[in-house]
Amino acid sequence: MKALPLGKVYQLLEPGPVVLLTTARRGRANVMTLSWHMMVEFEPPRVACVVSNANYSHAALRATRECVIAVPAAHLASKVVEVGNCSGRDLDKFAAFGLTPLPAQKVSPPLVAECFANLECQVSDTRLVNIYNLFILEVIQAWTDPAQKNPKTIHHQGYGRFVVDGKTIKLKSLKA
Amino acid sequence: MKALPLGKVYQLLEPGPVVLLTTARRGRANVMTLSWHMMVEFEPPRVACVVSNANYSHAALRATRECVIAVPAAHLASKVVEVGNCSGRDLDKFAAFGLTPLPAQKVSPPLVAECFANLECQVSDTRLVNIYNLFILEVIQAWTDPAQKNPKTIHHQGYGRFVVDGKTIKLKSLKA
Repeated sequence: MKALPLGKVYQLLEPGPVVLLTTARRGRANVMTLSWHMMVEFEPPRVACVVSNANYSHAALRATRECVIAVPAAHLASKVVEVGNCSGRDLDKFAAFGLTPLPAQKVSPPLVAECFANLECQVSDTRLVNIYNLFILEVIQAWTDPAQKNPKTIHHQGYGRFVVDGKTIKLKSLKA
Repeated sequence: MKALPLGKVYQLLEPGPVVLLTTARRGRANVMTLSWHMMVEFEPPRVACVVSNANYSHAALRATRECVIAVPAAHLASKVVEVGNCSGRDLDKFAAFGLTPLPAQKVSPPLVAECFANLECQVSDTRLVNIYNLFILEVIQAWTDPAQKNPKTIHHQGYGRFVVDGKTIKLKSLKA
């Protein structure tokens, strides 16, 4: 994994990919699937995300205030859905689905080796957690896998229907 | 435009498309380009979005507490970028870029006729506006254009680079 400048993190999340979110609590790591996230600030990169209190990860995120957002390419789509179909209450999802946890540098939750990008995050604002399950995260360390060239991401359209990235187009934008 | 059940709204926004956001103030409508949005609740559909206080739309959204989120298909990409490259302070963007405002049913800001979906929204929470420019919206009326079949959306990867929806895949998800 190669370090990514923090100012480039928004380019990964702004397009709306389905991501994985890892947490760790009492020595045990967990991973969930997440689509409800958005950028809030370019640099330092801040991200808002909704992690339902029905999800096992909610309590870990709240208690430890740390997570990793891992961005999977399309070839991982079936694993990503399987991760979303079960709970860390019941099983070790890394082992069950053949995902490889790697030590992060600045937080306890692991990176996901198979993902092309991994973002180490701290929870920086919990004001809207009780009302909307909405956490504000700050990305403090970002990694990309140079071996995965031009990864295509997936975007959830509901009920297991995903759209995969197609062609890219370039238009003259005056803004980032 | 055909009314869309509110419980289906998340299927439009969860995939992370670039959208347009219209506001109206003192009898004048405006439109901006937006990628920083996410679903917060399925039903009633709530959406979080970041509208910078550097944007002309910020003050209108704050004062009137109403907006429309319009979802453009890929054929509108160049107009969407042009809308994002200038400010409503300086010109009437609807006229300048040939976008057609249509009266909404429940809010003052207009729908955008060329977009395949339009979501009439009220601002429901402004607690994080001062800190992050983050508004919580509630979608109170949703419309789709039945004439636009299987529209492909665009996703911003930074600096005018967009990825267009490619193929869709279906995987067995146990959740919405």
